[in-house]
Amino acid sequence: MDNIKSLTGMQDHFNDGDKDNLSSKFFQVEQKIKEIFINYKLEEIRTPALEDANLFNRSVGNSSDIVNKEIYAFNDRNNKTIALRPEGTASVIRSIIEKKLDQTTHKLWYMGPMWRYERPQKGRYRQFNQAGVEILGIKEGFPEFEMISLVCSIINGFNLKNCSIKINHLGTKENKQTFCDALVQYLLPFKDSLDDKDVERLNKNPLRILDTKSEKTQALLKNAPSIKDYIDQTSIEFLKSIKDQFSDLCDIEIDYSLVRGLDYYSGFVFEAISSELGAQDSFLGGGRYDHLCKKLGGKDLPSIGMALGIERFAELINTDTSSTKTASFLIVTSNLEPKAYKIAHQLRALNKEIILDVHLSDGSLKSKLRRSNKDNADYAIIIGEDELKNNTAVIKYLKDELREQQTVTLDELYSFYKSI
Amino acid sequence: MDNIKSLTGMQDHFNDGDKDNLSSKFFQVEQKIKEIFINYKLEEIRTPALEDANLFNRSVGNSSDIVNKEIYAFNDRNNKTIALRPEGTASVIRSIIEKKLDQTTHKLWYMGPMWRYERPQKGRYRQFNQAGVEILGIKEGFPEFEMISLVCSIINGFNLKNCSIKINHLGTKENKQTFCDALVQYLLPFKDSLDDKDVERLNKNPLRILDTKSEKTQALLKNAPSIKDYIDQTSIEFLKSIKDQFSDLCDIEIDYSLVRGLDYYSGFVFEAISSELGAQDSFLGGGRYDHLCKKLGGKDLPSIGMALGIERFAELINTDTSSTKTASFLIVTSNLEPKAYKIAHQLRALNKEIILDVHLSDGSLKSKLRRSNKDNADYAIIIGEDELKNNTAVIKYLKDELREQQTVTLDELYSFYKSI
Repeated sequence: MDNIKSLTGMQDHFNDGDKDNLSSKFFQVEQKIKEIFINYKLEEIRTPALEDANLFNRSVGNSSDIVNKEIYAFNDRNNKTIALRPEGTASVIRSIIEKKLDQTTHKLWYMGPMWRYERPQKGRYRQFNQAGVEILGIKEGFPEFEMISLVCSIINGFNLKNCSIKINHLGTKENKQTFCDALVQYLLPFKDSLDDKDVERLNKNPLRILDTKSEKTQALLKNAPSIKDYIDQTSIEFLKSIKDQFSDLCDIEIDYSLVRGLDYYSGFVFEAISSELGAQDSFLGGGRYDHLCKKLGGKDLPSIGMALGIERFAELINTDTSSTKTASFLIVTSNLEPKAYKIAHQLRALNKEIILDVHLSDGSLKSKLRRSNKDNADYAIIIGEDELKNNTAVIKYLKDELREQQTVTLDELYSFYKSI
Repeated sequence: MDNIKSLTGMQDHFNDGDKDNLSSKFFQVEQKIKEIFINYKLEEIRTPALEDANLFNRSVGNSSDIVNKEIYAFNDRNNKTIALRPEGTASVIRSIIEKKLDQTTHKLWYMGPMWRYERPQKGRYRQFNQAGVEILGIKEGFPEFEMISLVCSIINGFNLKNCSIKINHLGTKENKQTFCDALVQYLLPFKDSLDDKDVERLNKNPLRILDTKSEKTQALLKNAPSIKDYIDQTSIEFLKSIKDQFSDLCDIEIDYSLVRGLDYYSGFVFEAISSELGAQDSFLGGGRYDHLCKKLGGKDLPSIGMALGIERFAELINTDTSSTKTASFLIVTSNLEPKAYKIAHQLRALNKEIILDVHLSDGSLKSKLRRSNKDNADYAIIIGEDELKNNTAVIKYLKDELREQQTVTLDELYSFYKSI
C-alpha cells in the first residue's frame, strides 16, 4: 500500500532529543520568545486559523502577492469563502473590533502557524510560524521605543551575532502618497528598462520597487527621490533618538530605502536582519499602521506591530543545554509487575522538577542502562525481582562513576528523590 | 463599512488579565499539561494543520461522521485534495512512517488546533484544541499503566473533583469482530424499533450503538451480548490490575460498554469523565491501536494514545493565581523622554523574573497609579521631570500601604530591582 506523504512545503517538527536538530531549536525559540513577551507584560491573543476571506482582501490589500497568488482560500460546506490566515495582524484587529475593544489600549502577543501557497524553496514553507506583537491605541512615541527595546531583548536574549536593526519613517499617509507619486514620475521614463515584476509593482505598489532584486533597477534608484525629503524634521529627529537610545545594545541604522511589504504601514517601520541568512536576510519586521482598524470597520486606533518568522529565526540560534535533571526508571522483572510501575508514579508526584523516564518496553538491564546513558540521564532507578520482593530499589549515579550504586528502601528512595 | 466577523464556531482566545475568563483558563491548561508531559519524558511532535485528505479516509475510516460530514477538505491551487486535520493521531503516524521511524519506540505528545464542521452548539467549536500522547512501538503492558498514570496526574495536578476514569478491553481485532457480529445478530430482529441513527450505525459501525442516546435502544442493550464474554481472561485480569494500582489515586471503574468512536481502536480503551460537564461528559479518551501504522503503509507498530479536549477541560479547572511579581513603570514627563524609556529597558535586562509593565500612553500620575493598582502590580517605579534631571527614580510599594515611597538614585533602583 502506498504511503501517504506530508504536503509539499509543510514540515513536521519533532524534537527527538538531538539538540542540534532544527525542530529542537524551533521549540526553544517558541519558549524563550514567549518568556520575553510575558516579561514585557504583553497579553496573549489566539485567533482562529480560518477567517472570512474578505478580511485579508481588505487588510493586506489585494495588490499584494499574498492575497493574489498565495492565499489558501476555499468554500466551506455553506458556500462561504474562507481562508487560512497568511499573517497575524488582520485577525487581531478583527477580534478587537468584534469584542468592541477598539477604544482602549492593548499590548498583545500571538504565536502560531500561517499559510501561504509559495513556490517551494529553501527556508520557505507553505505552513510557517510567526510570533508577533501589536501595541494598540497609542500614537507615535513610546510604543516605538518598546518595539525596538523588544527587538534588542530578543537579539541579545539569544546572543545573536551579525545582526542589525534597520529603521525608517514613511511619514503620514499623505507624505507616503506624495513620495509614491514622485517615485512613479521618476521611474516612468525608464519603464522599458524595468523587468516585468518591477513594471507590475510600478502599477500596483510602487514602493515595493525599492526592494527590487534587479541590479539595473537598483542603479536607477540611486538618483530616485528619497523618502527623507518627503517626511518632516520631527520624524527624522524621532528616528535619530531611537538610534541614539539603543545603539549601545544593538547595531541600529537609519535606512531611508526600507519599506515594508504590506500596504497598511505608515510612519515608523523597522526590520532586523542577519548576515547569516543569505539573500533573504530579514527575520523580523514591523511598523506603524494607524489606519487599519478603521479600514476594517472599527474606530481610529493608532497601532504598531511586529512579527518574527520562527523557522527562520531558529536557523540563527545556538542551542541551550537543558539544566533539568533526568532519572531513568528501569523495571527488570520477568513478568509485568504493576506494583513496580506504581513506584514510578509515586516518584513523579513527589518531585515535579525532575523528568522521570520510565522504560516501558522489555529488555535486559544492560540494554536499558545503555539507553539511559545515551539519553544523558543523571540517575537510574532499578527495580528487579529481588527489589520488588524486599520493597527496595537500586540507585545508580550515572554522572558520577566513582560513586557506588546503592540499594535503598522505598522510603529512602522517596526521600532521595525529593531531595535531588 | 461592514465589520468582518469571526467565522461561526471559531473562537478568539484573549487573556485580558481577568483570571476567571475562560481564555485565561485555556492558556493555563495548555501550560500545565505541557509541564506534565515533559515530566513524563514525552517528546513534542508538531505536524502541519493540512494533510492529504486520503490520510483521514484511511485512518479515521470513512464510515465515521468525522470524515463524511465534518471534515474541512478542499482542492489547493494544484488541484490536490487537502484537508484540515480533524484529530491528531493519523498525522503523527504518517510522520513517523515518512521519517522511517516506524521500527523504534517513541513516547510523543502534541498540542494544537483541529477542525470539524460541526453544528454550532454550546461547548462545541469548529476549531478546537487537543493535547495528545502517543506511545509507539511497545505492545500491551506498561504503556497502558503509563497512560492511566498520566490521566491521574492530570486530574490530580489540576485538583479536579467529580471525575472518574472508565476502562475497558476490546480484545484482539478478531475478538472485536466476533463481538460486533454477535451484537448485530442480537439487534437485527429489533431493527424496526431502532431510530434512524442507530439503524445507520448497525450497518456501518455497530459498536457505536453502545453509545446510543435513545432510551429504547438502551433498554434493548441490557440483554445484549457483552464484550466481557468475547475477550480472554488475561484481558480481564489486566483491567483489574490497572484498577487496583490506581484506584487510590483516582476513581476508576471497568465499564464493559465503553467503546471509542474511532474505527482503529482495539485492546485497552479508556475515557475520563466529569459529572460537571452534563450529557457530553467525557473530556479525555484513548486506547490501543496496534494496526493503524500498517494500514497507513508502515510497519507493524503496536501503539496506544490518548487525547484531551482543551476547551472542554478548561471549563473544569479553577484558576491559579500567578505568583510572578509585577512592577509598573510610569513615565510622567510633559514631553517624550527617550532616556526615561531606556531605564525600563535596563531594568528588564537585570531581572527577567519580574514582569515590567511600561505604561506607554500619556496620562496623569494619578490615572497611571490607579491602573497599576487595578492590574495588581507589586511596585510602581516613577520617573518625572525632576527624577530625570537628577538621575533618580521614585519607588512606590503598592502592596504595602504602610511603607513610604522612596526617592533613590538610578544605581539604587537597579540594585533594588535585582534584589526583588
